[in-house]
Amino acid sequence: MREKINQIIFGHDTKASKLFDIILLWVILISVIVVILESIPSLNDRFANLFFYAEWIITILFTIEYMLRIWSSKTPFRYIFSFWGLVDLLSILPTYLELINFGFHYLLAIRIFRLLRVFRILKLVRFNREAQKLLLAMKGSGYKIAVFLMVVISIMVILGTLMYVIEGGKNGFTSIPQSIYWAIVTVTTVGFGDIVPQTVLGKFLSSIAMIMGYAIIAVPTGIISVELARNKSEDKVCEVCGHDNPDDARYCNQCGLKF
Amino acid sequence: MREKINQIIFGHDTKASKLFDIILLWVILISVIVVILESIPSLNDRFANLFFYAEWIITILFTIEYMLRIWSSKTPFRYIFSFWGLVDLLSILPTYLELINFGFHYLLAIRIFRLLRVFRILKLVRFNREAQKLLLAMKGSGYKIAVFLMVVISIMVILGTLMYVIEGGKNGFTSIPQSIYWAIVTVTTVGFGDIVPQTVLGKFLSSIAMIMGYAIIAVPTGIISVELARNKSEDKVCEVCGHDNPDDARYCNQCGLKF
Amino acid sequence: MREKINQIIFGHDTKASKLFDIILLWVILISVIVVILESIPSLNDRFANLFFYAEWIITILFTIEYMLRIWSSKTPFRYIFSFWGLVDLLSILPTYLELINFGFHYLLAIRIFRLLRVFRILKLVRFNREAQKLLLAMKGSGYKIAVFLMVVISIMVILGTLMYVIEGGKNGFTSIPQSIYWAIVTVTTVGFGDIVPQTVLGKFLSSIAMIMGYAIIAVPTGIISVELARNKSEDKVCEVCGHDNPDDARYCNQCGLKF
Amino acid sequence: MREKINQIIFGHDTKASKLFDIILLWVILISVIVVILESIPSLNDRFANLFFYAEWIITILFTIEYMLRIWSSKTPFRYIFSFWGLVDLLSILPTYLELINFGFHYLLAIRIFRLLRVFRILKLVRFNREAQKLLLAMKGSGYKIAVFLMVVISIMVILGTLMYVIEGGKNGFTSIPQSIYWAIVTVTTVGFGDIVPQTVLGKFLSSIAMIMGYAIIAVPTGIISVELARNKSEDKVCEVCGHDNPDDARYCNQCGLKF
Repeated sequence: MREKINQIIFGHDTKASKLFDIILLWVILISVIVVILESIPSLNDRFANLFFYAEWIITILFTIEYMLRIWSSKTPFRYIFSFWGLVDLLSILPTYLELINFGFHYLLAIRIFRLLRVFRILKLVRFNREAQKLLLAMKGSGYKIAVFLMVVISIMVILGTLMYVIEGGKNGFTSIPQSIYWAIVTVTTVGFGDIVPQTVLGKFLSSIAMIMGYAIIAVPTGIISVELARNKSEDKVCEVCGHDNPDDARYCNQCGLKF
Repeated sequence: MREKINQIIFGHDTKASKLFDIILLWVILISVIVVILESIPSLNDRFANLFFYAEWIITILFTIEYMLRIWSSKTPFRYIFSFWGLVDLLSILPTYLELINFGFHYLLAIRIFRLLRVFRILKLVRFNREAQKLLLAMKGSGYKIAVFLMVVISIMVILGTLMYVIEGGKNGFTSIPQSIYWAIVTVTTVGFGDIVPQTVLGKFLSSIAMIMGYAIIAVPTGIISVELARNKSEDKVCEVCGHDNPDDARYCNQCGLKF
Repeated sequence: MREKINQIIFGHDTKASKLFDIILLWVILISVIVVILESIPSLNDRFANLFFYAEWIITILFTIEYMLRIWSSKTPFRYIFSFWGLVDLLSILPTYLELINFGFHYLLAIRIFRLLRVFRILKLVRFNREAQKLLLAMKGSGYKIAVFLMVVISIMVILGTLMYVIEGGKNGFTSIPQSIYWAIVTVTTVGFGDIVPQTVLGKFLSSIAMIMGYAIIAVPTGIISVELARNKSEDKVCEVCGHDNPDDARYCNQCGLKF
Repeated sequence: MREKINQIIFGHDTKASKLFDIILLWVILISVIVVILESIPSLNDRFANLFFYAEWIITILFTIEYMLRIWSSKTPFRYIFSFWGLVDLLSILPTYLELINFGFHYLLAIRIFRLLRVFRILKLVRFNREAQKLLLAMKGSGYKIAVFLMVVISIMVILGTLMYVIEGGKNGFTSIPQSIYWAIVTVTTVGFGDIVPQTVLGKFLSSIAMIMGYAIIAVPTGIISVELARNKSEDKVCEVCGHDNPDDARYCNQCGLKF
């Protein structure tokens, strides 16, 4: 019995476990939509009861699932303190805490992390393979990206400090952290426009920062492109001539060797 | 007779059908320009009559074309319910509906979908081949792009919810959907500036989101680049098995044939 | 004599012509800076005389140069109506026109096109070779870029029209051209924030447009990357084994053949 | 003794020098955080004394380090006037200058350049190798990037001037430099929204500029991607002539040596 439930909940191969995954996927999506809709004042005024009952039904379903996961798991403690175990707990805890203390209302927004549970289910389908390729490319270029980010963040810190000195508090650059925030908004080309340089020198420095931000976006793009390209072509190496072949090759395209 | 009209309207090889395509292209462009200009209050006040007559002449021309297409088609029903058949119908319907009920005025804007008809005509020229290459690259990287978009949208939903909790309604983050809208504006580096974080924590979280949005734009770019590069080099088609081989291949990598 | 001046002005190899180029480069840059500074009200009030004399000295120098170019050219008419001939004329004409009619004051800004003359001089140095590589890559991908731009512009026109219907004039979407302008600002991720969607449906549609704009930037990037990569590697093809070698190769890296 | 201190301060291989580097790294980061926090009015009001003492402790530590570097260096003058020597001096000077003249308060922000010292320490770890690869790619594409930037800046100057003429001072385009600043904000897709076109012609021109800015971002990205890809594959170094060969080379393409 416990074996069977374990297979249904944790497994992904049998018919029953697939059905379970699909139902769970829908319950998660509905629960996320409930959290989102509940935050709209006009809807919450009219459908407060509906949201309340929906929330409790979902929470009870998730609680049963959580209990079953612990009960059927061979290593319950490892599950509870695993990443997914904590996400599962986080999905139900806020609703119960709300019961005890009504002051924690904003805590309810934590329920949005239920969305993460979708990715556990997606792990099974083809999405996963593609996600892993992307992750691999990002890991492979991790150090380069880290170097890039360190340089960019240093530029932002220095730029922000200079702008704080040049513009000063009366133009919105009230402190260095505020100016660094502005520098981030500018170099990433977001450009909210809530803080803008007013002095000639400030505008000149901003112009340089903007052109730089526009040009250096090329760097991470290049890094990822190269890494993705490398992963793609590093799939089948010919034993005889050592040539890299695409992963769907049946014969080496340099010496004709059959793989 | 029917055969001939079919050839002129649906075909693209004879002199008459080419002339028909060019005339149609111009009528479509003029009709789109009429729709656009008509929406400008100052122009509409002065040239209302002109727009009215132009619109009706174009609609009647399109109606005749639509009738001829149905009449000359070998499979009229398949044409009517095909994508292009529906676009053709959508191009004329709003004007007739306007005749019946003047309240539907905004419905007239649907006529802008006439623009889509341009792409049917473009299908014939060289543009098509290039478009297909681009489409192929996008299809080839469809799963990767989908994974990327799912992750990005999840980030936006979670970021939006957190910002809703941190900033609250008084700073413009009035509901979670509104905050998610802000998160999309920010992560895509659009940055309208109609809603901006006011609290220190909100600005800190935004900064991280902006740097992330700035860096992860590299991912779809890398995906498309690699896919396009792969398509480009797949120029050698094997005569025996029809498999595309990279252009520096000496043997087909599917059947081992020597080129 | 005429031969010699022709060589100095049009040539770039002798010592005299190189000196001429360098002097011309500086005069052009100074003239552009004068045009720019003259437009600043506070500076123009104080140094109006200085700018006036500087402008006339530069114009006279350029006029002499223009005369010498016509006089020394073997095919004066071809020069006058060539691209560079017209740019040269445009560089001096506004100042003379100003003399006749003082109402044309804004016409003076046309003198900024003098900046283009810099590129004629740059044609000679190493910059040119790199520029040509970039131009080649852009030409090679011209059709693809054109297809991309056509699709993007169509999306912008349709999006703008839909937003005009959804938002309406009271939210700033006063006409379809205005809404298309907003769509361009949004899809290109510029995001001025002068016009922003106010309705829920408008925000939803904008969100889709922004995510799309964010993702499709990948397409032209991929196109140019692939084209640049192709140009780079298509420089030296081995006659014996047909392998592509980098352009600095002295031996084929597949069969060892000496080029 | 002097030899030993030199090894600890300038070296990175012994245990003592590694410890020194780690301590220095932390002191630098703390000093940067102090500079940043000190600029926040509310914090400075409450912890002014704390910041004052922290600043002096750090300055004295840095001064001792600076002295030791000069004293232990074999070529003290070369160190003092080297890039890192000047950065070291800049890290301590503002605090001492503050002592003499309290009017120079904003000068204190120069201390932010202490952040640069972090990069000297990072030089030793793996980060350095990746940074050098990135730097190499940027150097290798330097001329192309320079050509690109020159063209982009010329476009911005011309666009700015045209917008100045079209929009004029009453719409915020008060001078050509101001308009060029707007053009930079627009073409780089930052889009603050502090200055926006008001006229129809201005909006039309902006639209073209935005689409152009959106499309040409592809160029530097392509350049860097290709350069990074080339570096990656240049792994085989010829033992005889030292030339880098692509990793699929069978013969050195400079001297014909068989690998």
